[in-house]
Amino acid sequence: MLPVASDPTVGVKVGFTPLIKADRLAKRLGIRELWIKNDTVNYPTLSFKDRVVSVALSRARELGFTTVACASTGNLANSVAANAASAGLKSYVFIPSDLEQGKIVNSLVYGANVIAIKGHYDEVNRLCAEIAGKFGWAFVNVNMRPYYAEGSKSMGYEIAEQLGWQIPQHTVVPMASGSLLTKIHKSFQELTKLGLVSESAYKVHGAQATGCSPISVAQKAGLDFFKPVKPNTIAKSLSIGTPADGFYALRVMKETGAACDDVTDDEIREGIKLLAEYEGIFTETAGGVTVGVAKKLIAAGKIPANDSAVLCITGNGLKTLDAVVGHVGNTREIKPSLREFETLLANENLSTVTT
Amino acid sequence: MLPVASDPTVGVKVGFTPLIKADRLAKRLGIRELWIKNDTVNYPTLSFKDRVVSVALSRARELGFTTVACASTGNLANSVAANAASAGLKSYVFIPSDLEQGKIVNSLVYGANVIAIKGHYDEVNRLCAEIAGKFGWAFVNVNMRPYYAEGSKSMGYEIAEQLGWQIPQHTVVPMASGSLLTKIHKSFQELTKLGLVSESAYKVHGAQATGCSPISVAQKAGLDFFKPVKPNTIAKSLSIGTPADGFYALRVMKETGAACDDVTDDEIREGIKLLAEYEGIFTETAGGVTVGVAKKLIAAGKIPANDSAVLCITGNGLKTLDAVVGHVGNTREIKPSLREFETLLANENLSTVTT
Repeated sequence: MLPVASDPTVGVKVGFTPLIKADRLAKRLGIRELWIKNDTVNYPTLSFKDRVVSVALSRARELGFTTVACASTGNLANSVAANAASAGLKSYVFIPSDLEQGKIVNSLVYGANVIAIKGHYDEVNRLCAEIAGKFGWAFVNVNMRPYYAEGSKSMGYEIAEQLGWQIPQHTVVPMASGSLLTKIHKSFQELTKLGLVSESAYKVHGAQATGCSPISVAQKAGLDFFKPVKPNTIAKSLSIGTPADGFYALRVMKETGAACDDVTDDEIREGIKLLAEYEGIFTETAGGVTVGVAKKLIAAGKIPANDSAVLCITGNGLKTLDAVVGHVGNTREIKPSLREFETLLANENLSTVTT
Repeated sequence: MLPVASDPTVGVKVGFTPLIKADRLAKRLGIRELWIKNDTVNYPTLSFKDRVVSVALSRARELGFTTVACASTGNLANSVAANAASAGLKSYVFIPSDLEQGKIVNSLVYGANVIAIKGHYDEVNRLCAEIAGKFGWAFVNVNMRPYYAEGSKSMGYEIAEQLGWQIPQHTVVPMASGSLLTKIHKSFQELTKLGLVSESAYKVHGAQATGCSPISVAQKAGLDFFKPVKPNTIAKSLSIGTPADGFYALRVMKETGAACDDVTDDEIREGIKLLAEYEGIFTETAGGVTVGVAKKLIAAGKIPANDSAVLCITGNGLKTLDAVVGHVGNTREIKPSLREFETLLANENLSTVTT
């Protein structure tokens, strides 16, 4: 069901990340049943991009490429760099120059050539289209895009399998290019056609950051097309102002009767904290977007309180530390003295409950 | 085989991390067969500490505790904070105040009370012993230590199972307190006694940072005891100058005829880069210690070139970014222009191989 000729040879440990029953967060958000599809621990680079890269690089090898590349907002670069390294392929990754340090170091360390472009992702992407046409490299999301995009389907296959071979009533998916949302829909359609799950109504809802919300703005206005924007949000992995699959994402949401919304930077941070404090899962900003939008959709009744929903959490919080530093409280610093600790507790009215 | 009365209720997704056949790194280090036990993707906080915390907190709940705590060099604090959050337990984590920012934020985000102590880990540990005696909290590595320590055994059980139920000839283990090394040995002993693996000779080698090498120094001098030191190394997660299980680790190495060595900060960074460039795995400094020491032991023939070895990689590189920033090369910054990219390639003699 994935477009490779034989078994994948790159990224064979990718996927089958945990699906967590999130009872504490469900109660907090006011919904009967909630699940977290947790790609924060995906292999090897802690984001859903490991899925698409496994397929694209396995296929690139089959086609005889020895140099691989990508245009990326960070996570994709990490995954191409790591998977190319373990496969012995040469790699070039192209990123906007203002990315989070964690994502830059996490590409350099694998020995990738990291090219930082002074411009937005959309400019990076256009440059890569030119380079791909000229150099004959396997750009995973340009000339290899048809293979690459199909890799996202594994997230949907796994969700259905982990729910006991059924499609969730609601799935909330973050949108950058919009590709992931369309491929999760496609995966559910394929499983249904194959008879692996029973046919059932389902909705695939889209989530964006308000600072880069071309798809969400269009959906809420009832439009079939979006207007490109200049991104300005802490959710840099979702900062694509001209989403390649935006048109198709809008169509999927319309077809499944799904909703769409967007959240501010403060709501993104709140989403990150909710998931951490209630489920012990630390997500990057994109996950904060997903949680924040889910909260809004539940509150608005667009995801009914008596239904069941899956949130797609696509990357690890250690990748976007900059976005939360200063917003998660502070340490309390003391000398190594019992008296100082007791004073601290007393001053802050912290409990010393003995169990 | 773990000291909980019923099935663990905290951290049920912990463990069974991938065991990777590292053919590229094996060739580079000059050994026939090499495996990486990869806890950089452990659930939920990307280090082997999730194993010990799952056992300690599950047992703490059975005993009726509602507040949990720990003394930590970082990874343990992350894991206690995350697992306590998902279990609805209150947590206090005590750390040296000079820890990496990633590890501090990654405790705060879960809502833990993070107490930063102006002093070394050994001072943090002594303070926690005093607090544990007075407050009746479940300190996972103080009053809960007997339960906690047993949790490390799962790493050994899994290695043997993933190798097809056999014990590796050589296992290289990083040492902070020395506990992990002793418990991997114990896990192999238990599997042998139970008949789950055939009895076979094996060695469990210890790895330390030269800047905090009390156990390594003692082992190399043929001593049964160590002399406490003041740590000074980038491997902060291994910076325990008075290792609680150092005596027992020395005994295990003696009994199994194992070797021990230590590596400098530069060698640690080189170890991190080797693992990233050859296997696409980004480890924290402790993993750099393990790879660096393995390299030395192979070169010295203490791990013979025709044997098979497993390296225990215990934490993720995103947790210790500070240690590698500036040592992994740089990005090349250009404008979004094909001409600028071609000039860059020409100036740097980078290849534009067409496949």
